Amino acid sequence: MNLVKNASGRLVPTELNGEPQIPYMGIGNYKPTGRKFAPHIPSNADYPEDGNKQVENLRDALVKAGLRDGMTISSHHHFRNGDLVMNQVFQIASELGVKDLRWFPSASFPCHAPLIKYLEDGTIHHIEGSMNGPLGAFSSEGKMKGVAILRSHGGRYQAVQDGEVQIDIAIIAASTADTFGNANGVNGESVSGLLGFALADSQYAERVIVVTDNLVPFPCIPWQIQGNYVDFVVKMEKVGEPEKIVSGTTQITKSPDRLLLAEMTAKFCDAAGLIRDGFSFQTGAGGTSLAVSKYFGDIMRERKIKARFARGGSNKYLTDMLEEGIIEYILDGQTFDLDGVRSMRDNPRHVATSPFTSYNYHSKGNFAGIVDIAILGATEVDTDFNANVVTHSDGQLLHGIGGWQNCLFSKTVIIPLPLFRNRIPVVVDSVTTLCGPGELIDVIITERGIAINPLRQDLIEATKNCGLPFKTIEELKYEAEKICGKPQKPVFDEQIIAAIKWVDGTVIDVVRKLK
Amino acid sequence: MNLVKNASGRLVPTELNGEPQIPYMGIGNYKPTGRKFAPHIPSNADYPEDGNKQVENLRDALVKAGLRDGMTISSHHHFRNGDLVMNQVFQIASELGVKDLRWFPSASFPCHAPLIKYLEDGTIHHIEGSMNGPLGAFSSEGKMKGVAILRSHGGRYQAVQDGEVQIDIAIIAASTADTFGNANGVNGESVSGLLGFALADSQYAERVIVVTDNLVPFPCIPWQIQGNYVDFVVKMEKVGEPEKIVSGTTQITKSPDRLLLAEMTAKFCDAAGLIRDGFSFQTGAGGTSLAVSKYFGDIMRERKIKARFARGGSNKYLTDMLEEGIIEYILDGQTFDLDGVRSMRDNPRHVATSPFTSYNYHSKGNFAGIVDIAILGATEVDTDFNANVVTHSDGQLLHGIGGWQNCLFSKTVIIPLPLFRNRIPVVVDSVTTLCGPGELIDVIITERGIAINPLRQDLIEATKNCGLPFKTIEELKYEAEKICGKPQKPVFDEQIIAAIKWVDGTVIDVVRKLK
Repeated sequence: MNLVKNASGRLVPTELNGEPQIPYMGIGNYKPTGRKFAPHIPSNADYPEDGNKQVENLRDALVKAGLRDGMTISSHHHFRNGDLVMNQVFQIASELGVKDLRWFPSASFPCHAPLIKYLEDGTIHHIEGSMNGPLGAFSSEGKMKGVAILRSHGGRYQAVQDGEVQIDIAIIAASTADTFGNANGVNGESVSGLLGFALADSQYAERVIVVTDNLVPFPCIPWQIQGNYVDFVVKMEKVGEPEKIVSGTTQITKSPDRLLLAEMTAKFCDAAGLIRDGFSFQTGAGGTSLAVSKYFGDIMRERKIKARFARGGSNKYLTDMLEEGIIEYILDGQTFDLDGVRSMRDNPRHVATSPFTSYNYHSKGNFAGIVDIAILGATEVDTDFNANVVTHSDGQLLHGIGGWQNCLFSKTVIIPLPLFRNRIPVVVDSVTTLCGPGELIDVIITERGIAINPLRQDLIEATKNCGLPFKTIEELKYEAEKICGKPQKPVFDEQIIAAIKWVDGTVIDVVRKLK
Repeated sequence: MNLVKNASGRLVPTELNGEPQIPYMGIGNYKPTGRKFAPHIPSNADYPEDGNKQVENLRDALVKAGLRDGMTISSHHHFRNGDLVMNQVFQIASELGVKDLRWFPSASFPCHAPLIKYLEDGTIHHIEGSMNGPLGAFSSEGKMKGVAILRSHGGRYQAVQDGEVQIDIAIIAASTADTFGNANGVNGESVSGLLGFALADSQYAERVIVVTDNLVPFPCIPWQIQGNYVDFVVKMEKVGEPEKIVSGTTQITKSPDRLLLAEMTAKFCDAAGLIRDGFSFQTGAGGTSLAVSKYFGDIMRERKIKARFARGGSNKYLTDMLEEGIIEYILDGQTFDLDGVRSMRDNPRHVATSPFTSYNYHSKGNFAGIVDIAILGATEVDTDFNANVVTHSDGQLLHGIGGWQNCLFSKTVIIPLPLFRNRIPVVVDSVTTLCGPGELIDVIITERGIAINPLRQDLIEATKNCGLPFKTIEELKYEAEKICGKPQKPVFDEQIIAAIKWVDGTVIDVVRKLK
């Protein structure tokens, strides 16, 4: 494998799974010169005159779609850990004796652990997509036949749009659909909120299969996925478990440390003048994030100001603020609880988005750049403000990128995180895996001090007299090491088990097999 | 010009405006083999970081978009006869000395008569799009430099999608937009309802300019046009006159003849068993159509049944039925009055559609085929049930195709029309211009009798004892000629002034210069 040093100084391969790769060239430096992927032109003459595309069952649909060795099968992860479809898809593929499939999910979860047997028996060659939990651990052990490729939500759209990943068969599980293939995730029993992660798949895949457990007469409204892109419709008993769409915790943290972090974050934003009438923010899910949202709400109420919009993942805290009127719009990419689903279904100000609108970097702009404040997580940050979100400090690949890289383009990017976890420092010399370049990360907030990226002199100036405990990033690292000792670095083998793509499709780093 | 006889027996050219053409091959017989048009891949790096794409004025936007000789400039017609933008666009082009533009509107109206001077001075080479009124008459005189090409709404989407027409600059006038380029036609003062006709333009044009008179802070919701496709945003004083979006009359006809036609149409549908719970229909605008909708409503109320959906163009009559609950959904392609706009804005069951969802024939099906009853108009029909919608019996090209060809794929297509107009028979030997093949036209309803296409034995069987006055199409023609005499045929020159495309992009007929 030929390795070159990319613009961030990381050694990356020029080829992965037999396909050429472009090393990361720095932010905005790689300019695509080609054209978007062009699907075959279909003809109505090849589809049922009455629009009814229902077939007997999933197996039938896969066979009619021409499932064969080496194909790329895609799926969305709006059901998160409650997906009931993809294990069946690969079971059928295995029964049909199909080999070397590429699975291209927008993310995978612990519920997909049964797929390990299909990775082992050669049904699946490799996975390109976030691997949360067991499949990531399996990869970290070097057991997957191909190299995993991890992309952000925006990067996944970009890869499909640009033809880097050509999807042969897209599987789109939906809580409601009609036999023409119009589908959504807000109506029916097995709700997942929206289907935005499947948009690219529907637009660009050669064959599209919609799977639902709730068929309604045409038209299925809203048609988050449009039947005009769909080849086959399958009704099955149950496509997903809505109660498992929950991401992180749905309760505001009670941990005093986390509450402190959240409060410091809100105070910092306020001191920096970022919380003003008409501002916008994205906090994400999880206990600390919810607490940040809550503090933002308190400030807005006190000042009698409104946020123009908040980005989802949505949850009850956000939808309550929408209904209260202190947030004018939620622009949502995924619903993280059933309040999010209900709100998206019933409230026209709760808008379903897709990675095309929010995150695609190969576009005429996207709206991540319009968001004033993005509150993000990380497993590690380093003294260059680089951050890691995919590997733990033990080197295991256990998380996906999600929209994290895309959100780095927001106007102010803040990462609140504890200075150490399980007595392992979180601020390090150099992140194990580079997922986001430090020049896009503005502020690191820890319980023991706040470090502002020197590139953001405006923020340093605005907050200099606010009384918050500012430190340099080096001071934070020193402090962490003083308490926990210098951390042991994980020991890796040579074998590359995963590549991390930047938002423009270039390779920013790799993950290696653990020794 | 090389002419060949197409599958309908019409002589059509194999080349138009220097581009090769495919003669009509019969319904469903031409199968596209290529791939969709692939636009260049853009990069966020080339667009403003904060998403603000506003430029000073329309001239500035056109210059930045690289306006130059020979380009294709597109526009939508949701303002119908109230468009205030396109005359300015070509005035600017003329001032800049740009020549030989192709104007590719989804339709043009009498308000565009001022463009005749730009057709005369060479600023505009030719128009591809419906020409209602003066521009059509100008073409019929053989005065346009190039040959006009007329497409249906679905055919226009198909042509752009397939790359037959490559748009250099799309102009999208919107009643509301944000500086990122998100836009809609339902909010603000200059409402046009929706922007579906501009969808293809936004997706496939090299440069997209959104023009509005109502800029709102991001996000402009709904984003009928997504800013991610937009290059420049221009604010101007007024983009359109909403009171001129009205199509045809907004009052139910008082003419006893027309009322009779409408009543016969409703009775026929009822006798044929087409009006049943969950059925769907499209009647269009105009006094007779409104009356048909009214009679349908009466039948539904009496039977206590509902229509699952009605297709727009929407107007007060349709929105009233939606609000009453006897129509479950309106799937709307254009709003024909301000009640339509209001309903689309406020009622989630009034759904904005685009020619992609409703009409595109090079798709995996479209929903025109799902509609149970389509009530359409025509300028002429002939004894093979062929119909003409673009030329008058005097041979003048005065109308566009609209969605008419696309609706022919509905399950039952009915054309109610008077047997003669101004003492000129409407049922003729052979239509002057073939727009729709007779095999797709099921029923001709005139005040003096109903002719069912012999291909529809099911309809003949179902209605045989219903007491309505059935005749053969030949009998209708004979009766018309008995009253009016054999009509004079218009006399044409050799010169082809316009080509009529079928829904698959093939040439079904041509229009020649009048002698």
